[in-house]
Amino acid sequence: MSGKVYLVGAGPGDPELLTLKALRLLRSADVVLHDELIGPEILKLVPASTLLRNVGKRGGRKNIRQQEIDTLLVQYALLDLQVVRLKGGDPLIFGRAGEEVEALRRANIEFEIVPGISSMLGAAAAVQIPLTHRAFSSSLIVLTGHSSPSEDLNDAFDNNWPKRIAPGTTVVIYMPGYNYAATCRQLVSAGLEPATPCAVISKATSPDQQIHLTTLQNLHGAPKLPTPTLLVVGEVVRLARQPSPINEFASFAANIPLGTFVRFEPQELETSE
Amino acid sequence: MSGKVYLVGAGPGDPELLTLKALRLLRSADVVLHDELIGPEILKLVPASTLLRNVGKRGGRKNIRQQEIDTLLVQYALLDLQVVRLKGGDPLIFGRAGEEVEALRRANIEFEIVPGISSMLGAAAAVQIPLTHRAFSSSLIVLTGHSSPSEDLNDAFDNNWPKRIAPGTTVVIYMPGYNYAATCRQLVSAGLEPATPCAVISKATSPDQQIHLTTLQNLHGAPKLPTPTLLVVGEVVRLARQPSPINEFASFAANIPLGTFVRFEPQELETSE
Repeated sequence: MSGKVYLVGAGPGDPELLTLKALRLLRSADVVLHDELIGPEILKLVPASTLLRNVGKRGGRKNIRQQEIDTLLVQYALLDLQVVRLKGGDPLIFGRAGEEVEALRRANIEFEIVPGISSMLGAAAAVQIPLTHRAFSSSLIVLTGHSSPSEDLNDAFDNNWPKRIAPGTTVVIYMPGYNYAATCRQLVSAGLEPATPCAVISKATSPDQQIHLTTLQNLHGAPKLPTPTLLVVGEVVRLARQPSPINEFASFAANIPLGTFVRFEPQELETSE
Repeated sequence: MSGKVYLVGAGPGDPELLTLKALRLLRSADVVLHDELIGPEILKLVPASTLLRNVGKRGGRKNIRQQEIDTLLVQYALLDLQVVRLKGGDPLIFGRAGEEVEALRRANIEFEIVPGISSMLGAAAAVQIPLTHRAFSSSLIVLTGHSSPSEDLNDAFDNNWPKRIAPGTTVVIYMPGYNYAATCRQLVSAGLEPATPCAVISKATSPDQQIHLTTLQNLHGAPKLPTPTLLVVGEVVRLARQPSPINEFASFAANIPLGTFVRFEPQELETSE
């Protein structure tokens, strides 16, 4: 048996944030099974002769369940094919790779995990905030707004977030949903100051990237930016880049222009070959 | 002025885990200032005509301080050069990019942050553990064993780790040091079970990668694997791959072979051009 499955992270959106290994595998695979959110610029790197299949749980006509994806991976590998399972961001952070890994092990299928730039790293780079900082933040907590990513819940209640969050922690929330008031209440009751700065980042590193800077107490007024979004909460957000001239940065730290709605135009993509 | 600084993540070690963008920038930069830990396989991607300078804080004859690195970045950019500041992992997680960003903003230098595969993603992929899992772990805490990465402390006391860590949290500790007994005490006093499985991962994704699987209560007996190491603690570690045949996995979950010393030989590198 020579079939093998690669669980590959596609990164946050920008095709140039693919790893060299991901590109090599996309070009040599027999089958690529990809999530709904993988952009067309990445999919067009797959040769036309490769079987390309959208197994996105939300999109398309069919609503494929996790178990069906697991079965597909196993079946293609048993046909001696090289299979790439392409996931947004990194497979090991809220990517449900754990379930696929278990299915592949049960079926005795050879597999390998190829990490990708996780969405939080893409978002942080876009906003230019360090997630940790010697002066501001010594730890990072990563949470998800939805206990199950396959369900499109619009509230932040169905979770088991920590009851206490220490000051000086950066909090990153994947899939924060739009119930910002509830998110704020929950984080403040865990000990964060209502004045803690935060950033909503929509479609990070893509041409449609949007960023909204505010504070926890004003988060309820934030616009409902298109998914996928990510919420970053913590003192490090004070270091976010501003649309204003760079030399105004010094005055920014003391006087955050809250609620500004910023849309950055990323530079034109130069695909390297 | 056309000088520009790129703060670029080099990933965890494997050159194939560079992003396409990082490779493009390494090939086109005028100057590359790199950390000590960047491997020779990555450095040889830099053209011979490029000024390549090791600004590692530990290695070499000179002990370059952060402030000197900041100054170098600004000075090269003011000479209208394209400068790559190459850091291990991702620049925004314990990479001290925050200080460099502030220096560049103060000097009004154009800059861009290019994310890299953070060490924890490389380590998790190597051990094949999801950092979050619907059944086992709904949140992730990322800490560092050293409050200042430039100091080579051998204990885990000089930190401000959370006083409470909720069950079902995956804990990742960068630079855990070798005082494993103290690390265990601190995590158990924060609420983790002494029987919580953990993995020490040394030089993840490099040819010298080593992995030691144990539990918190037996962590004190773990070998002092070469740095850089990373410690992952949580129920997800039960899902770590074993050196034994894959089909023994099912029995592993019930009966962890603790204290096993595992050395994986990564596959031969195929550099893609």
